[in-house]
Amino acid sequence: MKLFVLDPVAFYFRGKPEKDMPILNGIYPPIVTPFEDQEVSYSQLSNNIKKWNEYELTGYVILGSNGENAMLSEAESLNVLETAIKYIPDNKQIIIGAGQESCKLTLNYMKQARQIGGDAFLVVSPHYYKDQMTDSALLNFYTEVAEKAELPVVIYNVPKFTGINLTLNVLEKLASHPNIVGMKDSSGNMTYFQSLLALQLPEFQLLTGTANTLFPSLMVGAAGGILALANIAPQICLDIFHLCQQGKIEKSRELQLKIIRLNQLTTNIFGIGGLKYALDQIGFFGGKPRSPLEVPDADGKAQIRTELKKISLL
Amino acid sequence: MKLFVLDPVAFYFRGKPEKDMPILNGIYPPIVTPFEDQEVSYSQLSNNIKKWNEYELTGYVILGSNGENAMLSEAESLNVLETAIKYIPDNKQIIIGAGQESCKLTLNYMKQARQIGGDAFLVVSPHYYKDQMTDSALLNFYTEVAEKAELPVVIYNVPKFTGINLTLNVLEKLASHPNIVGMKDSSGNMTYFQSLLALQLPEFQLLTGTANTLFPSLMVGAAGGILALANIAPQICLDIFHLCQQGKIEKSRELQLKIIRLNQLTTNIFGIGGLKYALDQIGFFGGKPRSPLEVPDADGKAQIRTELKKISLL
Amino acid sequence: MKLFVLDPVAFYFRGKPEKDMPILNGIYPPIVTPFEDQEVSYSQLSNNIKKWNEYELTGYVILGSNGENAMLSEAESLNVLETAIKYIPDNKQIIIGAGQESCKLTLNYMKQARQIGGDAFLVVSPHYYKDQMTDSALLNFYTEVAEKAELPVVIYNVPKFTGINLTLNVLEKLASHPNIVGMKDSSGNMTYFQSLLALQLPEFQLLTGTANTLFPSLMVGAAGGILALANIAPQICLDIFHLCQQGKIEKSRELQLKIIRLNQLTTNIFGIGGLKYALDQIGFFGGKPRSPLEVPDADGKAQIRTELKKISLL
Amino acid sequence: MKLFVLDPVAFYFRGKPEKDMPILNGIYPPIVTPFEDQEVSYSQLSNNIKKWNEYELTGYVILGSNGENAMLSEAESLNVLETAIKYIPDNKQIIIGAGQESCKLTLNYMKQARQIGGDAFLVVSPHYYKDQMTDSALLNFYTEVAEKAELPVVIYNVPKFTGINLTLNVLEKLASHPNIVGMKDSSGNMTYFQSLLALQLPEFQLLTGTANTLFPSLMVGAAGGILALANIAPQICLDIFHLCQQGKIEKSRELQLKIIRLNQLTTNIFGIGGLKYALDQIGFFGGKPRSPLEVPDADGKAQIRTELKKISLL
Repeated sequence: MKLFVLDPVAFYFRGKPEKDMPILNGIYPPIVTPFEDQEVSYSQLSNNIKKWNEYELTGYVILGSNGENAMLSEAESLNVLETAIKYIPDNKQIIIGAGQESCKLTLNYMKQARQIGGDAFLVVSPHYYKDQMTDSALLNFYTEVAEKAELPVVIYNVPKFTGINLTLNVLEKLASHPNIVGMKDSSGNMTYFQSLLALQLPEFQLLTGTANTLFPSLMVGAAGGILALANIAPQICLDIFHLCQQGKIEKSRELQLKIIRLNQLTTNIFGIGGLKYALDQIGFFGGKPRSPLEVPDADGKAQIRTELKKISLL
Repeated sequence: MKLFVLDPVAFYFRGKPEKDMPILNGIYPPIVTPFEDQEVSYSQLSNNIKKWNEYELTGYVILGSNGENAMLSEAESLNVLETAIKYIPDNKQIIIGAGQESCKLTLNYMKQARQIGGDAFLVVSPHYYKDQMTDSALLNFYTEVAEKAELPVVIYNVPKFTGINLTLNVLEKLASHPNIVGMKDSSGNMTYFQSLLALQLPEFQLLTGTANTLFPSLMVGAAGGILALANIAPQICLDIFHLCQQGKIEKSRELQLKIIRLNQLTTNIFGIGGLKYALDQIGFFGGKPRSPLEVPDADGKAQIRTELKKISLL
Repeated sequence: MKLFVLDPVAFYFRGKPEKDMPILNGIYPPIVTPFEDQEVSYSQLSNNIKKWNEYELTGYVILGSNGENAMLSEAESLNVLETAIKYIPDNKQIIIGAGQESCKLTLNYMKQARQIGGDAFLVVSPHYYKDQMTDSALLNFYTEVAEKAELPVVIYNVPKFTGINLTLNVLEKLASHPNIVGMKDSSGNMTYFQSLLALQLPEFQLLTGTANTLFPSLMVGAAGGILALANIAPQICLDIFHLCQQGKIEKSRELQLKIIRLNQLTTNIFGIGGLKYALDQIGFFGGKPRSPLEVPDADGKAQIRTELKKISLL
Repeated sequence: MKLFVLDPVAFYFRGKPEKDMPILNGIYPPIVTPFEDQEVSYSQLSNNIKKWNEYELTGYVILGSNGENAMLSEAESLNVLETAIKYIPDNKQIIIGAGQESCKLTLNYMKQARQIGGDAFLVVSPHYYKDQMTDSALLNFYTEVAEKAELPVVIYNVPKFTGINLTLNVLEKLASHPNIVGMKDSSGNMTYFQSLLALQLPEFQLLTGTANTLFPSLMVGAAGGILALANIAPQICLDIFHLCQQGKIEKSRELQLKIIRLNQLTTNIFGIGGLKYALDQIGFFGGKPRSPLEVPDADGKAQIRTELKKISLL
C-alpha cells in the first residue's frame, strides 16, 4: 500500500507533499461512537461521518479511545467499522483502533477487521499488567503485532489511559520496523516528543494525540494530529495545521490558545461525555456515552457552551 | 479468637442459604491459567486444581488478574471456567473474575458465566478512562452490576493494575447493597484498609489481595485473603491464617516475614511469569504466560529458587 | 511477649552505656512548636512539655516535621531545643530533628545542637534535588553524617514530605554503621516496613512514624512509634503499645481502629494546623502554625472535635 | 515579530522606572555556585561571571536551584550574592533566588539580600508540607511575601523539586499583584504553560524554566527563559531566542532539537554534577557540587562530551 511511503522529510511547511501520495499527516478525528439507549446507533454514526466528510480531514480514527472501543463487544466494534467504512470516501485514510492485552487477542481482532477494510491500525500498548510491561515485553508485543498485521501499524502512546510511557529506546527500535509507520503520542509531554523528533527516525511519522499541544507539536516537527477536538472543531484544527504550513505562525498560535480551554473541558475534565455534549450543541449527534461514562453536570455544560461560543461554534 | 467471628449471613451461595453456611473468609488462590504453545491447556489446569484441592483452601478465584483473564478471549474464559468447575469439589467456593469497561459488557459476560456455574463474581473497577471514573461513575457501575448480576458481587480494588483507588465514600455506599458481599483490596495500603474496617460495614467482608499484607491485615480484622502466593504456597498462607485464628500470633508473624520476599518476586517484581516459574519448580504446571508477558531472566529465576528453598518448598 | 524484647545494646545515650539502659522503643511525640503572633512561645512550649511529662512516653522528638523546624531560623531552632531540654526530665530520651540538604549544613547544625544537649539526631533525607538523590548520594550523605555526628543517628524516611523513599539496599548498608541506631519510617507502607524487618538488621530499631500504622507495625515487629498523635493522645498511643506487649491484641486493635480517623484529620488532612487545633481543645497550647501553614476551616474543626469526643478526650 | 513585543511597564528595576526600561525577557542563566574542597570559591565565581558577561544575556539568576542555594548557609548565600553583584555590569538584571518554608524566613532573608543589591526575587513555593500547601496557603504565602518584599517578585514553579504545581486559579490571582511581575515555569508542561498564556494576564511575564521547552515556549508566547543550559551554552540559547524574534523559525527549531539531549543530561539525568562537569570541559569552572550531590560516572561524562561536540562546544 502506497499510503505510507514517505520521503524522510517529516515536516512539510515548506512545500507540498509532491505527488498525491497520501502520507500519515494532517488532521484526523478519533470519531465518537454514538449510542441511543446504550445501543450503538449506526444511523447517527453515518450522519456524523457525512458531516465530517465536508472537511479537509486526512482521514479518521475509528474505534480509538474516544470511540469507546473499550466499552464495545468485538461484534459491535466490527459493525461500527463496517458502517463507518461505507460512508467514508476513498480519499480519506481509515485508521482502526486496535491493541489488546495479548498478541493473540490483538492479532485475532486485526484479522477480522482487515476483512472489512481500512488502511492502518492504531495499536495501544498493553497495559493491564503495568509493572510487567517492561521494555522488552513492549518491544516484543509491537514487533510480533507488526510482523503479522496485514496493515501498517501506528503506535499509540497514551499514558493517561495506560499508565505506560513507551521509552525512546523501545521506539527507536520499533521505528525501523518496515510495517510500523508512525506514532500517535497523547502524552502531551513536549520534552519527550522533541526527543523523539531529535532522533530523526526515517519513515516514522509523529502525530500529536491531543489538541492541547497541536500548535507547539507542529512547530517542532509533528506531521499532524489525531485530535478528539477535531470531532467538534475540525475546521479550527485544520486551520492551525494549514496556517503552520503556510508560515502564518502568529495566527496559528492565536487559534491554539483560543481552543485550549475547550479541549481540556472535552477531554481531560469531562472526557467523552463532554465531547458528546459539545457535539449535540453544534449539529452533530453526541448523545450519552456508554455507562458508566457520564455526561457533564449543569455547570460543566455551561462551561462547554461558553467555550463553544468563544470560537463561534455556537 | 473473636477477631474472625464473622456475621454468618454475609455470603450465601449455591442456593443453600442456611445457617452456618460458608462465608467469604479464609484463603483463596487466584489460580493461574496454564498455556502450552500460547494456547490454554485445559489438562494442565485440571491437574493443578486437583493438587490445590488437597489443601484447606476456602475456594478459588478463577479468571482473576493472575488468571490472565485480560489475555483471553471471551470464549476461552468461559471454557476455563467450565473446566475449572468440573474439578472443584462442591465444598469449595468458586469466585469468577469479571468486570469490564462498560456495564453492558460486564453483565453480558456474567450472564454467560452464570450459566456455567460458580458462586460469586469478583468485579474489577472499570479503569481505561481513568480520569472519567469519578466517584459517581464507579458508584453507578457497581450498583448497576450488583442489581443485575445473578451471583453475589465482590468488589476488586487493585490500583497497581487499574490506576484507580475506590474511595471510602463510594465503598460505604456500595457495602450496603444486598448483593455486594465484600471486597478484595490489593492496594497493600494498611491505612486505607483499617479505615475501611473502622467503618464497621455490616455484612461486608474484607479480604486482602496480597500476601504482602496477609498477617497485618488479619490482625486488624480481615476475613482472609485472595493471594497469588496461595498458588505456590497454599499451606503457608493457610498456616498464617489459622495461627492468627488460634492466637498464635508470634508464629504467624514469623511465617509472614519469611514469605514476603518470595511474594514480591512472584508478584510485584516478576509478576505472573515469576509465579508460573515457581509453580514449575514445585510440581505444579506453570509454563509460560501469554505473550507479551515474560518469564524471569536467569537471575530472577535463581532468586525465586532461593526463596522457595527458604520456606522448604524446594 | 517476645516481640518487643530488643537487643539492649542498640541505643546508648547520655553517656551511661550500662546494661539495661533504655533503647529506642516505645512512644515518642514529635512535639509541636507553639507560636504566639507568629513568634515562638517558649513559655507555652514549657507548659506543654510539663503536661506531656506526666505520661510514660519514652521521650520526645524536638524539631521534627511536626515541630515546624522547616519554618524556623537556625537560632530559633536552637532556642527551642534549649528550652525543651530544660523541662524534660533525665529519664526521657531527647531526639533532635536534624537533616538539611548538604552534609555541611547538617553537620554544622548538629555541632551547635550537640552543645546544648540531647540524645540522638533524627535525620531526614536530603530531598530538594529529588532525581539527583540516587542510592549512592543518600548512602554517602548518611554515612558522612553518621561518622561525624556526635550523637547516635536515627534515619527519618518520610516520602510524603521528601518525595524520596530510601531503598532496602541503602538501608541494609546504613544499618550496619555503628552510629546509626534505627529508623523512623513514616511511609505507612507495610510491605516496605515488613521487608525491612525481614532483613533482621542487628542493632537497628524500626519505629513507625505514623499512628495510621501503629498497631500493625507493632504486630510485625516495630520497636515503637514517633507519632504526631502522641501530642494529643499520648495515653491511647501508650495503651496500644502496652496492650501489644501484654498480648492483649484484641483490645489494642480496637483502640487502633478508634484513633485512625482522628490521626488522619490531624496529620494527612489538616496537618499541623489540625494537630494544633486539637491541642487547644484538650488543655494543651496549640495556637496557629507559622504562616503559610493554616488552621482548619469550621467544618474541619467540627470533624476534629467529633473524633476527640469519640475517644473521650472531649 | 509581534510575539515578543511586551508591555514595557512590567518590570521596573534598579529604581529607574522610566520608559523603555528592560523588562523580564530574554535569556538568563541560573548560575552555578562553584566549590573548591566543598567551600564556596568566590574567585571561580567571579571568573565565570566575567565569561558569561561576554554574552547578550539579559541577566542572571543568583542562588537558584542550580546555584545550590539549598546547600548553603544563609551567610554563604549572602556572600555569593555580594560577590556576584560586584562582577555583574549595570545593564544586566540580577534576580535573586529566595523562597523558604515560612513567610517569616523568606522575608528575613529578602531583607538582608536587599541591602546587598539585585533587581528582583525568584521565589520558589514552600513545599516541605506538601499536602498542606493548599491553594489558599500558597496564595497567602506569595501575597504576604510580595507585599513586603522590597523588590519585584518572580514566582518560581518547579514541581520536579517541590512536588507542587501552582494552579491556574492561584496564579490568576497572584498575577494581578502589582509587585508580582512574572513566573518561571519549570514544569515543562506545555498544556499548563499555554493555559496560563491563554489567560492573557497583563503585566505578568512568563519565562520557561527549562531548555527542554525553550523553542516551543517562545512560539506560544513565552518572554524568554531561565535556563540551566545557558550556563554552558549561552550563545545557542540566545540564538534560539533571537531567531524566533526574527521569524527564522526553522533555524530556531533545528537548534532546539540539537540541544535537547545535552540539556537532559545536564539537568534531568545528571543534574548539577552534570552541568558542572560540562562547564569544566569548555573553559568555565565547574568543579564538584556540594555533597551529597554527585558528579556523573565515566559513562555519563562521555555522553556529555559527545553532546558538547555535537554543538561544537568541544
